Amino acid sequence: MRSLKLTVVGGGSSYTPELLEGIINNQNVLNVSEIWLVDVEEGKEKLSIIADLSKRMVKKAKYSIKVFETFDRKEAIKDADYIITQIRVGQLTMRRHDEYISIKHGVIGQETTGAGGFMKALRTIPVLLDICRDIEELAPNAWLLNFTNPAGIITEAILKHSHVKVIGLCNNPINYYKKFANTYNVGVDDVSIHFTGINHLIWITGLYIKGQSKIHDILMGQSDSYEAKNIPDFGWDIEFLQSLGAVPCGYHKYYYQTDRILDEQLEEYQHNETRADKVQKIEKELFEVYQNPELQEKPKALEQRGGAYYSEAAINLILSIHRNSRDVHTLNVQNNGTIKCLPDDVSIEVNCVVESHQITPLQVGDVSPQIRGLLQNVKAYEELTVDAAVYGDKGLAHQALTLHPLVPTAERAKNILDEMLQMNTNFLPQFNEHSHEGDNYL
Amino acid sequence: MRSLKLTVVGGGSSYTPELLEGIINNQNVLNVSEIWLVDVEEGKEKLSIIADLSKRMVKKAKYSIKVFETFDRKEAIKDADYIITQIRVGQLTMRRHDEYISIKHGVIGQETTGAGGFMKALRTIPVLLDICRDIEELAPNAWLLNFTNPAGIITEAILKHSHVKVIGLCNNPINYYKKFANTYNVGVDDVSIHFTGINHLIWITGLYIKGQSKIHDILMGQSDSYEAKNIPDFGWDIEFLQSLGAVPCGYHKYYYQTDRILDEQLEEYQHNETRADKVQKIEKELFEVYQNPELQEKPKALEQRGGAYYSEAAINLILSIHRNSRDVHTLNVQNNGTIKCLPDDVSIEVNCVVESHQITPLQVGDVSPQIRGLLQNVKAYEELTVDAAVYGDKGLAHQALTLHPLVPTAERAKNILDEMLQMNTNFLPQFNEHSHEGDNYL
Amino acid sequence: MRSLKLTVVGGGSSYTPELLEGIINNQNVLNVSEIWLVDVEEGKEKLSIIADLSKRMVKKAKYSIKVFETFDRKEAIKDADYIITQIRVGQLTMRRHDEYISIKHGVIGQETTGAGGFMKALRTIPVLLDICRDIEELAPNAWLLNFTNPAGIITEAILKHSHVKVIGLCNNPINYYKKFANTYNVGVDDVSIHFTGINHLIWITGLYIKGQSKIHDILMGQSDSYEAKNIPDFGWDIEFLQSLGAVPCGYHKYYYQTDRILDEQLEEYQHNETRADKVQKIEKELFEVYQNPELQEKPKALEQRGGAYYSEAAINLILSIHRNSRDVHTLNVQNNGTIKCLPDDVSIEVNCVVESHQITPLQVGDVSPQIRGLLQNVKAYEELTVDAAVYGDKGLAHQALTLHPLVPTAERAKNILDEMLQMNTNFLPQFNEHSHEGDNYL
Amino acid sequence: MRSLKLTVVGGGSSYTPELLEGIINNQNVLNVSEIWLVDVEEGKEKLSIIADLSKRMVKKAKYSIKVFETFDRKEAIKDADYIITQIRVGQLTMRRHDEYISIKHGVIGQETTGAGGFMKALRTIPVLLDICRDIEELAPNAWLLNFTNPAGIITEAILKHSHVKVIGLCNNPINYYKKFANTYNVGVDDVSIHFTGINHLIWITGLYIKGQSKIHDILMGQSDSYEAKNIPDFGWDIEFLQSLGAVPCGYHKYYYQTDRILDEQLEEYQHNETRADKVQKIEKELFEVYQNPELQEKPKALEQRGGAYYSEAAINLILSIHRNSRDVHTLNVQNNGTIKCLPDDVSIEVNCVVESHQITPLQVGDVSPQIRGLLQNVKAYEELTVDAAVYGDKGLAHQALTLHPLVPTAERAKNILDEMLQMNTNFLPQFNEHSHEGDNYL
Repeated sequence: MRSLKLTVVGGGSSYTPELLEGIINNQNVLNVSEIWLVDVEEGKEKLSIIADLSKRMVKKAKYSIKVFETFDRKEAIKDADYIITQIRVGQLTMRRHDEYISIKHGVIGQETTGAGGFMKALRTIPVLLDICRDIEELAPNAWLLNFTNPAGIITEAILKHSHVKVIGLCNNPINYYKKFANTYNVGVDDVSIHFTGINHLIWITGLYIKGQSKIHDILMGQSDSYEAKNIPDFGWDIEFLQSLGAVPCGYHKYYYQTDRILDEQLEEYQHNETRADKVQKIEKELFEVYQNPELQEKPKALEQRGGAYYSEAAINLILSIHRNSRDVHTLNVQNNGTIKCLPDDVSIEVNCVVESHQITPLQVGDVSPQIRGLLQNVKAYEELTVDAAVYGDKGLAHQALTLHPLVPTAERAKNILDEMLQMNTNFLPQFNEHSHEGDNYL
Repeated sequence: MRSLKLTVVGGGSSYTPELLEGIINNQNVLNVSEIWLVDVEEGKEKLSIIADLSKRMVKKAKYSIKVFETFDRKEAIKDADYIITQIRVGQLTMRRHDEYISIKHGVIGQETTGAGGFMKALRTIPVLLDICRDIEELAPNAWLLNFTNPAGIITEAILKHSHVKVIGLCNNPINYYKKFANTYNVGVDDVSIHFTGINHLIWITGLYIKGQSKIHDILMGQSDSYEAKNIPDFGWDIEFLQSLGAVPCGYHKYYYQTDRILDEQLEEYQHNETRADKVQKIEKELFEVYQNPELQEKPKALEQRGGAYYSEAAINLILSIHRNSRDVHTLNVQNNGTIKCLPDDVSIEVNCVVESHQITPLQVGDVSPQIRGLLQNVKAYEELTVDAAVYGDKGLAHQALTLHPLVPTAERAKNILDEMLQMNTNFLPQFNEHSHEGDNYL
Repeated sequence: MRSLKLTVVGGGSSYTPELLEGIINNQNVLNVSEIWLVDVEEGKEKLSIIADLSKRMVKKAKYSIKVFETFDRKEAIKDADYIITQIRVGQLTMRRHDEYISIKHGVIGQETTGAGGFMKALRTIPVLLDICRDIEELAPNAWLLNFTNPAGIITEAILKHSHVKVIGLCNNPINYYKKFANTYNVGVDDVSIHFTGINHLIWITGLYIKGQSKIHDILMGQSDSYEAKNIPDFGWDIEFLQSLGAVPCGYHKYYYQTDRILDEQLEEYQHNETRADKVQKIEKELFEVYQNPELQEKPKALEQRGGAYYSEAAINLILSIHRNSRDVHTLNVQNNGTIKCLPDDVSIEVNCVVESHQITPLQVGDVSPQIRGLLQNVKAYEELTVDAAVYGDKGLAHQALTLHPLVPTAERAKNILDEMLQMNTNFLPQFNEHSHEGDNYL
Repeated sequence: MRSLKLTVVGGGSSYTPELLEGIINNQNVLNVSEIWLVDVEEGKEKLSIIADLSKRMVKKAKYSIKVFETFDRKEAIKDADYIITQIRVGQLTMRRHDEYISIKHGVIGQETTGAGGFMKALRTIPVLLDICRDIEELAPNAWLLNFTNPAGIITEAILKHSHVKVIGLCNNPINYYKKFANTYNVGVDDVSIHFTGINHLIWITGLYIKGQSKIHDILMGQSDSYEAKNIPDFGWDIEFLQSLGAVPCGYHKYYYQTDRILDEQLEEYQHNETRADKVQKIEKELFEVYQNPELQEKPKALEQRGGAYYSEAAINLILSIHRNSRDVHTLNVQNNGTIKCLPDDVSIEVNCVVESHQITPLQVGDVSPQIRGLLQNVKAYEELTVDAAVYGDKGLAHQALTLHPLVPTAERAKNILDEMLQMNTNFLPQFNEHSHEGDNYL
C-alpha cells in the first residue's frame, strides 16, 4: 500500500493535536509516512511546541510516522497527498480588531459572519491563493482540505481562481449528525440530514432516522437541534420554526435574533471580553499544557476550545477519499446547478458523495422563498467579497459590506471599511499596490 | 372607430381629475364614450365631488363622454375596455396606522417599502383579487392597469391568481425620462433608460441620449438623477454610485441610507407629522378646491399631491395599446426569464414593447451581484407576502416580514405583525376565517 | 425485524424465476413473508407455471415465504412494500406488429427506441397509470420499481401523473459495472462510472477504477465497452469516440449506425425473424423448461433471454432501500436540474444515492454539445409521447414520431402512426373515447 | 448632420445594386457621403462592373455620394459607420461542390441547411473573423450587418470570437411581414409576428393583425404563409400544422419533408441542374445586363435572383439604428436567456428593439416540445460547427455533421466530411496548419 504525505499549513495551530490523534487512530488504514507542519516565522514558538507534542504522540502510538516542522512552505507542499489549511492571517490580534471595530459601529463582529468575517476574508484570500500557486506547481494531484474561516468564502475564492482540488470543510455539519444520533440513540450512519445552504448559513430541510422523518420533532419543539457553544443560545420561537419549515443553524441567530446578540456583544465589548479575548486566553492556557514534556496525547482541555469534532470531520473525509468509499459527507463545493437559485460558480455547503477522484454534490433543486431570500443575499455579499479580496477593489469591498444583512447602511459600511483597511494595511498588499476601484463594474 | 368604455375603480381618488385631463387631451384618438367612476359607499362624498368635477371638465372640453358614478362594481366593470385600479383599502387612516406601528418598533414605515407596504399588501390583495373575479366574468378582454400600491406585489398577486390581462403601473419610470430629457435638453423619445428590478426597487444600468451613453454623468456626480419629492434627499456618495455601477432609484435610500431616514421618520412620528398625516391634510384641501362649482379643469394644487405624471403614464400606455404602436414603456409584468436570477412567475419592472394584444418585456439577462443580492432578497419577501395575503397564513406573514431587509429580527417582525393584524382585523377576512398557519411549507 | 410483502405485476413473465432466485439469496436480510404474482387472465397459463416453479424454488430453499398467484391486482397491491412492474401490454404479438409496421415503412422498429418503443409507450402508459391509482389508494408508501419498457418514458409518465414513489430500473447500467470490473479484474465497488442521459440513451463521461481514470482505454480502442447481446455489434470508429469524448451505450448504434442496423432489420424482416420472432421462440422453450416439476431453481436457459443481471439490479436496489445504505445506483428519476439542459420534470438515468426515504440524483451539470443535441431531441420526443399517451392526442402522437431522429419525415410518421393506431385499437381506449387533437397546444 | 461611410465587403456581389437603390431612396435621412465596395482580386471584373453601375445610379439620382472600389479591405473598413458583409468564399464553384458531394452521399445539400451549409460555414467563418479583426482595429464603433450565409452560424462565430457589434440579417422575416400585410390588406406596421428560433429554422408562434390573432387562419389552411421561391413547395399537411401549433418556415421542409426534397434534388443532380447551377446561370445573365452603360438603375431581372427584400431589410435596419427609433426588427443576436431552452452564448433569430446603441431581444421564454426538440438539436450542431471552424478540429466537424438531423449516420458524415475537406483544402488553412483533433473535448 502506498504511504501518504500529509501537510498541515498553519501547523502551529492549537487544533493540530486533535488532528494528530485522528491520524494515529486510523494509521492502519491511512499508512501515513510523513506529516509536515508548516507555519510562518512569527509562529515559530507555537509550531515548535506543537511539533514536539506531535512527535511524542506518534512515539507513544509506536508508529513510524515522521513529523517535520518547517517554515519552507514549498518543501512542505511538494508531493503531498493531502494538504490541510488552518491558518489565521494576522493571528488573534487582528481578529480582535475585527470584532472591536465592528461593535464600535454598532454591528455584529463575528469571525465568519458579518463585518468580522468580511475583513478576515480580505486578509486571508491572497495568502490562500499563494498557497494554491505552490500546490498547482508542486502537488497538483493533492487534495486541499480548507478549514480556514470564513471557509465558504475562502473555498469560493480558490474554486474561482485556482485549479487546486479544494474541499471546504466545517465542523458544523458533523455536530448535527452526532447530536441527532445521540437524541435518537442510533448510530451516526442511521442519521440522514438534508442540508441546504452555504457555510455557516445552512438550513436543515429534512431529518431522517433510519428512513423515518423526524424533522417535526425539532420544528414542534419536542426535541433540540445542535447549538454551537460559541454562539449565544436564546432558544427558538417554535411558531417561527414551523413557518420556516426548516431548522436553522446556529449562525442564523445573527440574522434572526440580531438585537439580542448585538446587546450581548456590546456588553462583552465594554468589558473587553469578546470572543477573541476569550480565545486568546484559552490558547495561552492550551500551549502551556502542550509544553509539558510528559504530555503524550491530546489533552482534554482542547475540547473547550470549540471546533468540536473538527479533526473527526477531516479524518473521516480523508478516509473516504483514500478508500474511494462513496460515503456521503457535507462539504463546501462548487454549486454548478445543485442549488438552482444560486450562480453556478459559487461555493455551497451540501451533501456530497466522496470518491477518490471526485466529490459530487447531491442535487438539491429549488428552495423555499423563506430560505432563498437570505441565502441569495448573503451569497451575493460573498461573491463581492471574493472579487474585492482578489482584485484589491475598495469599491467592491464597500458594496459587499453594504449588501450584508447585518450592516444597515452604506455609510456605516464605509466607516467600518475605512477603519478596517487602515488597521489591516500590513496584510492587504492587493489594496495598496494599485487602485482598481470601480474597474470591475463600471 | 370603436368607442371605448373606461372604468376607474377607486374613482373618488383625488388623482382622478388628472386622469380626466389626460383622457380629454387625447379624446380625438381614444374616442372614449363612457367613463365609469366606481367606489365604496364609505367614499360616497368624495366620489360625488370627483364625478361632478369630471362632468364639468368634459363639458368644458365639449366632448360627449358620459361620466357615470356608481357603487355597483359589476355594472362599472361590465364590457369595459380599460380598467384602472387606484383604491386605498382602509383609506389614509389605515396607512397612518401602518406608519405609526412601524416607527414605534423602530423600523421604517413607508406606504410601499418595509412593514408599511407589507401591511397595505395584506389588506389590498384580497380586494384586488375580488375585482379580478368580476373582470374575468364581465370583461375578460379588458386591460387592467393597476396603480394601487404596493404596485409590484399587487400585480404579482394578480398574475399568480387570476387570468386578467394586468399591467402594473408606476409613475417612477416616467419621471426619469422627463428628468433626463430636461437635463440634456432633448425630447423624451431621445432618452433610453435601461431599468433592472422590481417596483420601487429599480436600478438604472444604462442611460443613453440619442444613442450616446450618459450614465457616467450621474455616477460621477456631474449630473443629478430624479429624486421623488416624497422621499428625503440626502444626496448620494459618488464613490458608492461608481462601485455600484448603476443609478439607484429614490426608494433605495430606505435600504442604503436607513439610519438617516429612520431618524427623520422618528422626528415626524414624535410630532404627529408622518407622510400619512401630511397627505390627509393635502387631500382635505384638494377636495375643498374640487367642490368649487366654478372649477372646470384640473387644479394646479393637485401637483403637490405627489404622483407626478401619474396620469400621463396611464394615458400614454392606453394610447400605445389602443394604437398597437409597439412603443417601449417601463411596466410591471411577469418575469418569465427576463431577469434570469429571479423566479419565472414573479413581477418585475422593466422596459416592455406594447402591442394591442400583448406586453412583451425586453430581455435583461444577468445582473451584477451588487444589484442581485438586494433584489433577490426583497423579491423573496414579496413572494411570501403574496402567499400570506392570499392564503391568510400568519406564519408566512411572519416569515415575509422577518426576511425584509428593513426589519432586523424575527422577534421585531412578530411584534409588528401582531399589532398590525390586531389593528386591521376588519380588513383581513382571510386571516380570521380559518387558520392556515404552516400549511404551505410544512 | 419487520417482514416484507413483495408484489410482481406481470408475475407470469419469464423473468420472474430470476427475481425469485435473488430474493431467496438475500432472504436473511430481506425477511420477505409474501410474494404476490399478479397477471391478467390472458396470461393465466404462464402465471400458473411461474407460480408453481416459484413455490418449488422457495421450498427447496427451505424458507417460509408464501407465494400467491392472483388476477386481483388490488389484493396483490394492498399494503405491499415493494411493487415490481414488468408487464407487456398486448404480449409479444403486439411487439411483433410494432416491429413489422416500422420496418415496412423503412424505419427502425425496436422495442424501446424509435417507432416500436413509441407504440409500446402508447399502449403501456394508461395501464401503468391505472396500476398507480391502485398503489396510491392501497399502498401509498410502497416503492414502485418499474422495469416495463420503454422504462424512461413510462417512468416519466408516472412521475408526471401520479404520486407513487417510482423508480425506473434498467439492466443496462449494471452490465457496465460488471463488464469493467471484469476488464480490470477488480470488484464492482471499485468501479465508478459517470453516466449522463436518459434510459437507453446514456453516455459514459467518466470511468474510474479505484479512483484512476480509465475512459481513455475505451476511447482509444485499447479496451472494449459493454455491448448488449440483443443489439448488432459493428464496432465503433475509434476517432469518432475520441471526438465524442464519451462512451456511447449500445442503443446509440440505432442513431449513429442507422444504415447498417436498418439493413440488418430489413433482412430479418424479410425472413420473418425479427427480435420479436426470436423472443417468442425463446419464451416458448423457457416455459417448457419451467413446467418440468423436477425443476427447483432458475434454469440456465433463462440467461439466453437477454435482460442479464436484471434481477440483480432489482434486488440490489431493494437491499439498499431496505438497509438505508446510501449506496450509489444508476436509476431513472426526475431531473429537477440534475442535467441542466433538460426540463425539470422529465425522467433521466443517472447515478443516485439510495436511502430508505428518498432517491437523490448526483449533480451532473452541463453536457457537451455532442451529447446535448441528440439527448434533447430524444427527450422532447419522449415528452410528447407521454402527453399523447395520457391525453389520447393523435396530433401530439404525430408530432412525437415526426420529431424522433429515426423517423425521417412527417409523412412517414403519419403513415406509421395511422397503421399502428389501427392495429392497436383494442389497447388504446384513450384515443378512441374522445378526440383531443390539437387541444393541448393550439 | 453627420455624414456616413458605408462599406460593402463582397461589393462585387450581384445583390449590390439593390442595396444602392435602397441607400439612394433614403439618402435624405441617411446622408451617406462614401460607399466603399471591397472585394478580393479574383472578383475584380465583377467588382468593376458593379462599381461602375453604382456610380451611374448615384449620378442619375443627383446625389454627391462617392463610390469607391478597392481590394484594400483595411482602407475600406477604416472609420466606417456600417459594414455589410455579403461574401461568398470560394464563389459559386465551391457551393456547387457542396451540393454535389452531399447529394452523391444521399443527403440534402443546401446552401445553409445540412451538409452544404456546414461546409460553407467551415470555409467562411475564418474569413469573417479576419474581417472582424480589421473592424476591431479600424472601426470599433461600426455596426456589422452580416448577410453572409449560413447567417446564424456565422453570426454566432462572430459573437463568440470577436468584440464587433454584429447583427445577423436574413430576408426571410421581412418576407413574412410583406406576405401577411398583403393577405390582410393592411400596412406592414399593422402586422405583428412572434418568431421563435434560429436563422432558417424559425417558427411563427403568433400572428396578429392590428392586435387580432390570425394564426389559426394559417393553421387551418384558410390562408397561406410565405413560401420562399428557392425551396420546393409541396404544401403543408393541415393537421400537422395544427398539432405543431405554429407555422414552420420554408426551411423546415428540409426536415419535415426530407424524402420529397431529396427526390427532387437527386433529379436535379442527375441533370446537372442543382441550385448552384441555376444561380451561376442567373448571375452570368445579370452581369451582362449590369455591364450595359445605359443602365442607371437596379434592373428588374435582379428580382429573379432570390433574396427578395434583402436590401429593404438592410436599409430599414440602418435607418432604425441611425434614427434611434426603437423599432422592432427580427434579427440574429446573442440569446442570453431570451429562448430559455438554448445556451446563453448562441445566436438566435427573434424580434428585437433597435436603438442606436444597442439591439435588445424581446423575451420569448419557453417553447413547446414540438419546436424544442428540433431547435435544440440543430443548435448543438451549429455550436459544434462554429468550434470546428474556429479551431480547425476535424473531430468536432465529424461530430457536428453526425448530429445534423439530415445526416443519418456517423459513417455517412465521415465520408462526406472527408470528401469535402479534400475538395476545400485551399480554403481551410485552420484544418491544414495543425491538427487539433480531439483536443477540445477529450
